[in-house]
Amino acid sequence: MNASVGLVITEYADFDVELRLESGRLLGPLTLAYESYGELNQERSNVILVAHAWTGDAHAAGVHSEEDRKPGWWDNMIGPGKIFDTDRFFVLCSNVIGSCKGSTGPNSINPRTGRPYRLNFPVLMVRDMVRAQKLLIDRLGITSLLAVVGGSMGAMQALEWGIHYPELVRSIVPIAGTGRTSPMSIALNALARQAIFNDPLWKKGNYRPEHPPADGFALARAVGHISFLSDASMQLKFGRRFSVRDGMFDFFGKFEIERYLDYNGGNFVGRFDTNAFLYLAKALDLYDVAWNFDSLSEALDRLNCPSLWFAFSSDWLYPAEQTEEVIDELQRLNKPVDYRLIQSDYGHDSFLVEPEKFIPILQEFLDRQAKAQNLPAGKTGALSRQ
Amino acid sequence: MNASVGLVITEYADFDVELRLESGRLLGPLTLAYESYGELNQERSNVILVAHAWTGDAHAAGVHSEEDRKPGWWDNMIGPGKIFDTDRFFVLCSNVIGSCKGSTGPNSINPRTGRPYRLNFPVLMVRDMVRAQKLLIDRLGITSLLAVVGGSMGAMQALEWGIHYPELVRSIVPIAGTGRTSPMSIALNALARQAIFNDPLWKKGNYRPEHPPADGFALARAVGHISFLSDASMQLKFGRRFSVRDGMFDFFGKFEIERYLDYNGGNFVGRFDTNAFLYLAKALDLYDVAWNFDSLSEALDRLNCPSLWFAFSSDWLYPAEQTEEVIDELQRLNKPVDYRLIQSDYGHDSFLVEPEKFIPILQEFLDRQAKAQNLPAGKTGALSRQ
Repeated sequence: MNASVGLVITEYADFDVELRLESGRLLGPLTLAYESYGELNQERSNVILVAHAWTGDAHAAGVHSEEDRKPGWWDNMIGPGKIFDTDRFFVLCSNVIGSCKGSTGPNSINPRTGRPYRLNFPVLMVRDMVRAQKLLIDRLGITSLLAVVGGSMGAMQALEWGIHYPELVRSIVPIAGTGRTSPMSIALNALARQAIFNDPLWKKGNYRPEHPPADGFALARAVGHISFLSDASMQLKFGRRFSVRDGMFDFFGKFEIERYLDYNGGNFVGRFDTNAFLYLAKALDLYDVAWNFDSLSEALDRLNCPSLWFAFSSDWLYPAEQTEEVIDELQRLNKPVDYRLIQSDYGHDSFLVEPEKFIPILQEFLDRQAKAQNLPAGKTGALSRQ
Repeated sequence: MNASVGLVITEYADFDVELRLESGRLLGPLTLAYESYGELNQERSNVILVAHAWTGDAHAAGVHSEEDRKPGWWDNMIGPGKIFDTDRFFVLCSNVIGSCKGSTGPNSINPRTGRPYRLNFPVLMVRDMVRAQKLLIDRLGITSLLAVVGGSMGAMQALEWGIHYPELVRSIVPIAGTGRTSPMSIALNALARQAIFNDPLWKKGNYRPEHPPADGFALARAVGHISFLSDASMQLKFGRRFSVRDGMFDFFGKFEIERYLDYNGGNFVGRFDTNAFLYLAKALDLYDVAWNFDSLSEALDRLNCPSLWFAFSSDWLYPAEQTEEVIDELQRLNKPVDYRLIQSDYGHDSFLVEPEKFIPILQEFLDRQAKAQNLPAGKTGALSRQ
């Protein structure tokens, strides 16, 4: 398969721990689903940790079977000769806790009851997700991360990594992120939440997996979809076109944008769990890098490595100003920081839709970090991955 | 009552007509609820028609009883000595058809069945609302409108008035409007619609008035609320404050912005009818001033009077660019046009929250129009209103 990592499998690491969460609650034992691509070098110095967004998973690249038509979510970035070059780097991606893609989340069995946690699952922060990932890094014997890279919720994880494990992290690349979510983004998540809560099938989280609150969940996803797009991208893709199937003066007639939201919302229901969606939404709402620090400055002062930041001109979910608030503070602190505002019409999704607009800058940054760690410019050494 | 029009009553005009709608359907007989303030002068040349927004009504100023604590929706603009000076002008406001505030709408009795229309009510366009208002203007013996003024959906009505009744209209003032709604605003309305459709109490519009689909309708209103605000206004008002009543790590804990949306959404349920809300949302989605013209240019070329336009910097529902698209075309057509982009943090609601930012410009414009119609600068003549 050309420039693909090819067949991959999701691995599962179990941890017999009780993780102390930001809320003070304990969570454990834990399972983390993860995938890795490329080979860990002898010095274990070529690791790129890729952090996924809200509804992402550990499957970032390659395919799970020869018949698999859809590769991992960042397949265009990860592979031989790609920006995260698996001929040079050992690329690792793990599913966050709180999710439903193999890592411990509200669907997992609560050891205290022998039944799924559902709403007994603790409310998490992004910091807790990173703390759980650290268990995996330790397990794999990795003592340095060349770069932690991620978009959206992945950007939050990258920043948390840099701040809470400065001894481990050599660089971070937060893309389309924010230092703390705004009331606007909280308000949008509140709509999504209420859409689910209003669905009688939700039953306060006690729905049967085969009977999820499909209508409410599809609507919740539609809220998200709108926030990931932009006025400009909707204009480009849909304009004011009315669905050819419908009459413009039919009460139930739909514009193309409505059909799109319907279709994607409905499609999503079978692919993600409602409770996990809610827990991750909550983690996004609670996200504030300055949480438990005296100030943003105190939090950012912990960052001990170069960072490269991308924001996107049409992103109104986490607008560029929010990234710039962090950048300004890092610059005041004299931290090595590089920031690029990328012109793109694709809203928050720009980082997935137009990666070519930031890949050259990212390439140069990664090469610089690799050189600083004495990695060969071409291929890395060969120690098979654990 | 200081600078108030004082006690007012809503009047009702019945029209035994069948109005041909844009959809081709007929609607009739019709009732229009309206209020008026000030005196019509002898020349009937001092009329200002005020057009309301989505969930507005005919009650624009004054109070309905001495105990009434809440005056009409534009009371700060209408009254003796105010910008719409009732010592000079005869100010008229009517509830649009399709609404639920006294004019014919989906709650009205369908003469063919003797029962409420509900979803048998025809889908309307803003143009139909204006066509119905024209019946009222004729009934009142008014042959010229000094100005048609409105915000949001009111701005659309003002523009339609200018284009479709150029012989009658002396000036228009569209505020926070658009020449056509964007896919983003349609998408937001689609969320609101779906929130209602998902509510089992909606029953395809056949809910009993005492059992409206309250949960779905409150959520629909919350969608609207978000679109009327801005990131900046939410930051100012709520920031990331968590409700003091809730624990931050409670699954059902709420941020202040969530409480606000809940409270206002719930509050709204008793004040407006769900089906009317849906019909007006549809009219907003369908709004395109160029509808049934060959082009925007052809539509705007019909405008035969001076126009004054206001857009607001933080309005992301009908962003300034949308007004500017219209302005650019009017300027190409050499129409007398004045446009001001007002800096305000209050989003789409800015026109209601910070009128002081545009009142001086509006004052100057109105004085100019009044002078052009030979109205005395001070008080107008005295012919009691019909």
